[in-house]
Amino acid sequence: MSTLSTGPSLPGNAVIAQSGGPTAVINQSLVGCIEALREFSDIGRIYGARHAVAGMVADDFVDLTETPDRTLARVAATPSSALGTSRDKPDEAYCERIFERLAAREIRHFFYIGGNDSSDTCRIVSEVARARGYELRAFHIPKTIDNDLVKNDHTPGFGSAARFVACALMGDSLDNAALPGIKIDVIMGRHAGFLTAASLLARTPAGSGPHLIYVPEATFDLDRFVADVDRIYTREGRCVIAVSEGIHDESGTPIAARIAEQLTGEVEVDAHGNVQLSGSGALGDHLANLIKSRLGKKLRVRSDTFGYLQRSFAGCVSPSDATEAREAGRAAGRAAADGLLEASITIERTSSDPYSVAYTPVRLSEVARKTRTLEPKYIVDGCDIAEEFRGYLAPLVGDLPVVEGL
Amino acid sequence: MSTLSTGPSLPGNAVIAQSGGPTAVINQSLVGCIEALREFSDIGRIYGARHAVAGMVADDFVDLTETPDRTLARVAATPSSALGTSRDKPDEAYCERIFERLAAREIRHFFYIGGNDSSDTCRIVSEVARARGYELRAFHIPKTIDNDLVKNDHTPGFGSAARFVACALMGDSLDNAALPGIKIDVIMGRHAGFLTAASLLARTPAGSGPHLIYVPEATFDLDRFVADVDRIYTREGRCVIAVSEGIHDESGTPIAARIAEQLTGEVEVDAHGNVQLSGSGALGDHLANLIKSRLGKKLRVRSDTFGYLQRSFAGCVSPSDATEAREAGRAAGRAAADGLLEASITIERTSSDPYSVAYTPVRLSEVARKTRTLEPKYIVDGCDIAEEFRGYLAPLVGDLPVVEGL
Repeated sequence: MSTLSTGPSLPGNAVIAQSGGPTAVINQSLVGCIEALREFSDIGRIYGARHAVAGMVADDFVDLTETPDRTLARVAATPSSALGTSRDKPDEAYCERIFERLAAREIRHFFYIGGNDSSDTCRIVSEVARARGYELRAFHIPKTIDNDLVKNDHTPGFGSAARFVACALMGDSLDNAALPGIKIDVIMGRHAGFLTAASLLARTPAGSGPHLIYVPEATFDLDRFVADVDRIYTREGRCVIAVSEGIHDESGTPIAARIAEQLTGEVEVDAHGNVQLSGSGALGDHLANLIKSRLGKKLRVRSDTFGYLQRSFAGCVSPSDATEAREAGRAAGRAAADGLLEASITIERTSSDPYSVAYTPVRLSEVARKTRTLEPKYIVDGCDIAEEFRGYLAPLVGDLPVVEGL
Repeated sequence: MSTLSTGPSLPGNAVIAQSGGPTAVINQSLVGCIEALREFSDIGRIYGARHAVAGMVADDFVDLTETPDRTLARVAATPSSALGTSRDKPDEAYCERIFERLAAREIRHFFYIGGNDSSDTCRIVSEVARARGYELRAFHIPKTIDNDLVKNDHTPGFGSAARFVACALMGDSLDNAALPGIKIDVIMGRHAGFLTAASLLARTPAGSGPHLIYVPEATFDLDRFVADVDRIYTREGRCVIAVSEGIHDESGTPIAARIAEQLTGEVEVDAHGNVQLSGSGALGDHLANLIKSRLGKKLRVRSDTFGYLQRSFAGCVSPSDATEAREAGRAAGRAAADGLLEASITIERTSSDPYSVAYTPVRLSEVARKTRTLEPKYIVDGCDIAEEFRGYLAPLVGDLPVVEGL
């Protein structure tokens, strides 16, 4: 925090926006930020921008200054981004249009809740503002189910998505134990395997799956995959597999992108250059068909792709995740009140037992455009996750249902 | 109940089995049945058959007579079938092998927890036993997330699966409101659309989707589907669609089966003649590609297939469903104690306000091999579900998360 610059009081209005993929707790951060800004006397009006930067250029704002606490409490508990979101990546001309709108509303404090790409958007807006002489203080509030922001022990949204994955795999492993076969579950995660690795929490004596876990930090080899499945199936008579949507071959090309190109002749790419991975069952189906063709047509092989369910499912929230998302939002509001010129709020684990965290502002450039991945020590033989990952994960996910077999 | 035959006391042992697809509450029925049988003095030992009839012929039994209450309480709260399950359909020779094993253990009471096909298995075992002179009293305990058993207002397992679908669509509609596009969600249901129709509960002012709901009770026409989506997308700028995996063309052929045949040249069929519908994202992907090719390559179109998650997800149970599954199991044990020769337990809704149900035994032949479907009054224009369906559904699903927008 010592390297962060502060400035004099800057009276004006504030805007808050939500960017990138929604999560189950991103509205907690929105409400936390509003709560802190209401305590901050420099701030006149608090605006929400609908659909993030896209709403700013379209002058689509909602005034949140006097939204009743009762409404905010319900919004905080609602999954997905209440203000709407966007994947736009602003260039200089786009930024110019943003500043026009912000200037018209005398907005001097800019709060951007988002992940990797969104922290970069926040950095771009902040840097272009400085270059153009538009006085703006920009703050990034972390959010991503991928858990891939550097400088963070973990990120808001991840714990609840991990809870969904654990509950789903827990049930699915029991389902597979009851009606044996080979089951492939495809889980979100482009470059980071944290969410797929969270399936480890589903491994209980009653269900015992997933038997294999593949994350994008390890190269995925189709032959090796078939051999792994064959080994487990021969031993157990069944096999549950958790696989990240971001698995890639030796050249770094996602398997999902290769399949999409084969099937449709094209690959969808967003403004940040990300290839579409979610919203299709093609990867799971491809792996299932591969297993059948290699290990036997008569095998019962099924695949499920968890898709968007894992980030917005209503009623599957980790308590610590909800609390921390709220606090991260508040910390951003406080950072502005402390006179910081810009910051990204990070979550530090200050103690493991008892579990506790701190919310520490760092420079935007320390977080933006960087991707954190799963530490190699957690990856076992390219097809499993080490037991010690439970210790890292458990407090983030909360107590899970207790299951027992006969 | 007046038409049911009773007989004299029949001392002997009992077997309980779980058949067909697992659910979130099928273990409640198992435990309820054990509880009732422990009160019934004719019963010596209580066996569980692993993997249903398959375990009976393989002599794979587990003795549940003295399983501690504490264990049973945890098993009851565990999703999926703790004894394992099977889709085998016994013929006469298969039944003969079952009776050999039952006779060896002096089993005279047979409890079979399952859906449509399983009630028929129960009937076959009961009838062949009678024809062969093997004295056996057979009881069917209802279970199916499809909710398609005749003589039942609803069936155990459905309420919890419907709760999953409602929570998933609630989150997904909010996700789609935040990041607009066209979203297709494929939900289980071969012939009956109850579970897909449960997505209606997700329609709130905050999320407002699903905008279109397709059930297998109405013929699915691809051109009509594209026109429906176009109409909603033009009006709303987005569209969330709930579609049953069992949708079929005018000839009755499932769209999923047509696609599977196109893709792989074959269609997987189980012992009961059911075509494989779940465990693949192909139907959703096909519909998504159709929308793109007809309405515009640049549209953001995504599909998710809920698959096995909706029947076994840990921690998403409807309270009334759990209670009723337990009571249905107990009612079967009591029917045996009352001296009934055979029965299927049914759930009747005796009052809507306040909601209450009764557990009524009927003849096996009244339920077996019959399929109940969604009443036509609930289906609107082949692409939506009537608001009045909420009244039927709400008590079965329990209180849902409250969501609010800005």
